[in-house]
Amino acid sequence: MDLLIPLDPQSEKPMYEQIYAYICGEIRSGGLAAGERLPSTRALAEHLKISRSTTQMAYDQLLAEGYVETRPYRGVYVAKIEGMVEAGPRIREEMETSEEESAVSCRIDFSPRGIDLKSFPYNTWRKLSRNTLVDDNREMFHSGNHQGEPGLREAIRGYLHSARGVECSADQIIVGAGSEYLLMLLSQILRADSAGTARRMQGAGKSADGLTPLDADIRIAMENPTYRQAYLVLRSLGHPVSPIEMDQSGMRPELLAASGARIAYVMPSHQFPTGAVMSVGRRRELLNWASEREGRYLIEDDYDSEFRYKGKPIPALQGMDRQGRVIYLGTFSKCIAPAIRVSYMVLPPELLRVYRAEAGFYASTVSRIDQNILYQFLAGGYFERHLNRMRAIYKAKHDMLLAAIRPLEERFVIHGENAGIHILLTERCGRTEEELIRQAAAAGVRVYGLSSYDIRATGEEKALATSLPGACGEEPTAERKPVRPATMVLGYASLDEGQIREGAELLTSCWCGCDLVRELSENRTNCA
Amino acid sequence: MDLLIPLDPQSEKPMYEQIYAYICGEIRSGGLAAGERLPSTRALAEHLKISRSTTQMAYDQLLAEGYVETRPYRGVYVAKIEGMVEAGPRIREEMETSEEESAVSCRIDFSPRGIDLKSFPYNTWRKLSRNTLVDDNREMFHSGNHQGEPGLREAIRGYLHSARGVECSADQIIVGAGSEYLLMLLSQILRADSAGTARRMQGAGKSADGLTPLDADIRIAMENPTYRQAYLVLRSLGHPVSPIEMDQSGMRPELLAASGARIAYVMPSHQFPTGAVMSVGRRRELLNWASEREGRYLIEDDYDSEFRYKGKPIPALQGMDRQGRVIYLGTFSKCIAPAIRVSYMVLPPELLRVYRAEAGFYASTVSRIDQNILYQFLAGGYFERHLNRMRAIYKAKHDMLLAAIRPLEERFVIHGENAGIHILLTERCGRTEEELIRQAAAAGVRVYGLSSYDIRATGEEKALATSLPGACGEEPTAERKPVRPATMVLGYASLDEGQIREGAELLTSCWCGCDLVRELSENRTNCA
Repeated sequence: MDLLIPLDPQSEKPMYEQIYAYICGEIRSGGLAAGERLPSTRALAEHLKISRSTTQMAYDQLLAEGYVETRPYRGVYVAKIEGMVEAGPRIREEMETSEEESAVSCRIDFSPRGIDLKSFPYNTWRKLSRNTLVDDNREMFHSGNHQGEPGLREAIRGYLHSARGVECSADQIIVGAGSEYLLMLLSQILRADSAGTARRMQGAGKSADGLTPLDADIRIAMENPTYRQAYLVLRSLGHPVSPIEMDQSGMRPELLAASGARIAYVMPSHQFPTGAVMSVGRRRELLNWASEREGRYLIEDDYDSEFRYKGKPIPALQGMDRQGRVIYLGTFSKCIAPAIRVSYMVLPPELLRVYRAEAGFYASTVSRIDQNILYQFLAGGYFERHLNRMRAIYKAKHDMLLAAIRPLEERFVIHGENAGIHILLTERCGRTEEELIRQAAAAGVRVYGLSSYDIRATGEEKALATSLPGACGEEPTAERKPVRPATMVLGYASLDEGQIREGAELLTSCWCGCDLVRELSENRTNCA
Repeated sequence: MDLLIPLDPQSEKPMYEQIYAYICGEIRSGGLAAGERLPSTRALAEHLKISRSTTQMAYDQLLAEGYVETRPYRGVYVAKIEGMVEAGPRIREEMETSEEESAVSCRIDFSPRGIDLKSFPYNTWRKLSRNTLVDDNREMFHSGNHQGEPGLREAIRGYLHSARGVECSADQIIVGAGSEYLLMLLSQILRADSAGTARRMQGAGKSADGLTPLDADIRIAMENPTYRQAYLVLRSLGHPVSPIEMDQSGMRPELLAASGARIAYVMPSHQFPTGAVMSVGRRRELLNWASEREGRYLIEDDYDSEFRYKGKPIPALQGMDRQGRVIYLGTFSKCIAPAIRVSYMVLPPELLRVYRAEAGFYASTVSRIDQNILYQFLAGGYFERHLNRMRAIYKAKHDMLLAAIRPLEERFVIHGENAGIHILLTERCGRTEEELIRQAAAAGVRVYGLSSYDIRATGEEKALATSLPGACGEEPTAERKPVRPATMVLGYASLDEGQIREGAELLTSCWCGCDLVRELSENRTNCA
């Protein structure tokens, strides 16, 4: 018996899950009846032209969940399922709809979150993984250094020094399972630091600057719009957040000063999502602001600085810091793969001291085995080669997208195009983001509005504010909601050249088509 | 040139790090001079009878840190090092001393934290790891489900159901990078839940029970003595902690009721470190306490329930819970390996709802690749086989230790011996824990005192209390410091049979030796 399973190699869903889901669906719908024999894993693998381990994993899962059963020497058969039918699938579906981007049905998705994994050096990773799992590395399975393996931290230090101009010792680096975890840890460090500062000030008979251990709700200023995930994490940790508007040099210092924030979270080298680069003068102003008062820090999120296509590299803000006021955050999610979950944080000496005293007992959240694979990837020069290759690939996609959307230039200003893996299109004809997104969706293309990264108070946010302990409502020091022209964010990393071309053509015809232009010129006056 | 590198296969430090550290030390001390040629990785591997990838890793690290350099077609040479000599090693030493147990120099270490990794199925793990990294599983490198991969959660659910009597759907399970991370996440969920409860009560015109979003410092009761790491995490998250004394049935309910705690953290199946099992009656009392008021929960830490040698298995408290009041915590650190950093938490429905609404945006902290390896390990039946093997190995070690320390019975009561991977010895002759530890150390044996797990207020702790925002000083509702007889905690998991026998002999002669007994009977009256 042959199963004609439709497989989509482009899907976010692993191949084995697609097979699992298909067979599971067939069993539930009655397409495969109890007692029916399934093809062997080998036969199915040959039939579908995939590896046998993939079919084996799908069958393992079906077996584990009781959909099929093995009969010794005879094969795999569809099981008789009674009570379990309801529970299994229900849970499964719920989980799938909770996956962020699964519900979208569109031909082309310009998601700014995608990355290109086709060119990942799987063979190298496999080889390094094998090297790590050799028998005499048994100790690798014991728990390791709390800050992360020393070799890995040294390799990260070397990379940050040469590629990003970051000045630190491996000692200041903490490796963690993703930036969200590191922000959780950092929040605890900042609170302990704040409590310590308050004690010292009280001890010295000075004004405690309003800081006591009990009202140490450390307010954090963020560029607006910004990386929403970091915003959600900081809010969820109980920090009040002040959205600060930017001008062309970056976060506006007078608004920062007025916000009452103690910490400013910035992305100086390539702001997300606007793509802006913070000027050297503005960097100095922010460093001065941080040095003015004890307990002030800048969090520098350098999430995708690896990819810059024009002009000279923009070094990290951290390298300009002489007062120990910058906390540097970096990640391997963008430049290697999101699934490996490795990020790192460089603490300035004062916070390193607080970390060791108050939070040094936390064991590292990254598997020691994975740290070792990554260490070999960095130390063996593979990372550098991989970055060079990805830079060339993204540059080619970027150039192709810019060429393909040239016809859109009459209606849009194109910007944010020198770095990263997305560009921005700002509408000149007065259409709203909702209209543009709707028109694109009708043409089968998914695009993202800049306003979805706006963190100024909205209904949703007020609800969040009151539901979180210690998170007071927002009192944005920025002007109330300046009207921003509609801007689309187009990520291209996960699309291939054909998809980029097709997507750009579809957008051109739906956003600049003749009917539309006529309609626009009839209804609007402010169209360029 | 041959390097005579002394390697210790029993060390916690990986082989490659030992090689690295030796060569690094030789270079710094001048034993290896600049320009000297090192043996090839192949020659060194043959010489030391280890795999070449291990020597390669050591050399990679030396290379990455600039201690050695490669000369094309000629080999690896000791580099000329100037400024770097100081920085490199200094940082390295600092990091090593921050490793918890590195400073100990003793023949036998009865650490309760050790586990046996000699019998780990490395081949299986390697094979599963290879299966996961095949080319058509590329999607595995994309980010995955926030709660953890559905297949893995389903496999965990199946295991918990059959082995532990836990009643849940895979939907209620959250996979995270270690129990400490899960406690961080849980703390946020509990705070959001508490804020929600306060809002609902205010809305209903009821007394808010003193809870407002701003004073939602959720007090947590813990058994005393307890697992120190969890205590440190909860304190560091700003929770006031009430240490609650136990009687032979478990945490004393009248002390819990008087503590003002909202949450009780318990280890009903095998309390750490006392080894006590909570009685069924006490379990019911605690469940009743939790059901009495909205917002009360029990955290059940079921950290090593896999290992029980006598009597019937003790099912999890969670299985008795009909009101959704138990949060179940489990880990693979003890039963697979600490380095893989995978734990899980089962949320009751009410908290699952809060999690989804307030913290569902957090991406999983465990690499999707690792989750898949683990999934295959569980679903393929390897985990069960591994557990059976480990249970037999630990039982053999346990029996051998009990037989070997029989001579100690005249001076000690031996208990906590039916489960887990450590036993307890309570002194009958009035010596203090410090004396016993000192005597053992003089004989080259490291043992641990029960009082090091005591969390009642100490000087250290008061300092911690004032340094943390929101963590008020302890006001233990337990009686002040009841004097507990000196008790030693002896872990045996990481020792082999020879070490167990030798350690027991050394302890017998140093704790029950003739001179000592004479001295004791002269100086003390309360000796049995």
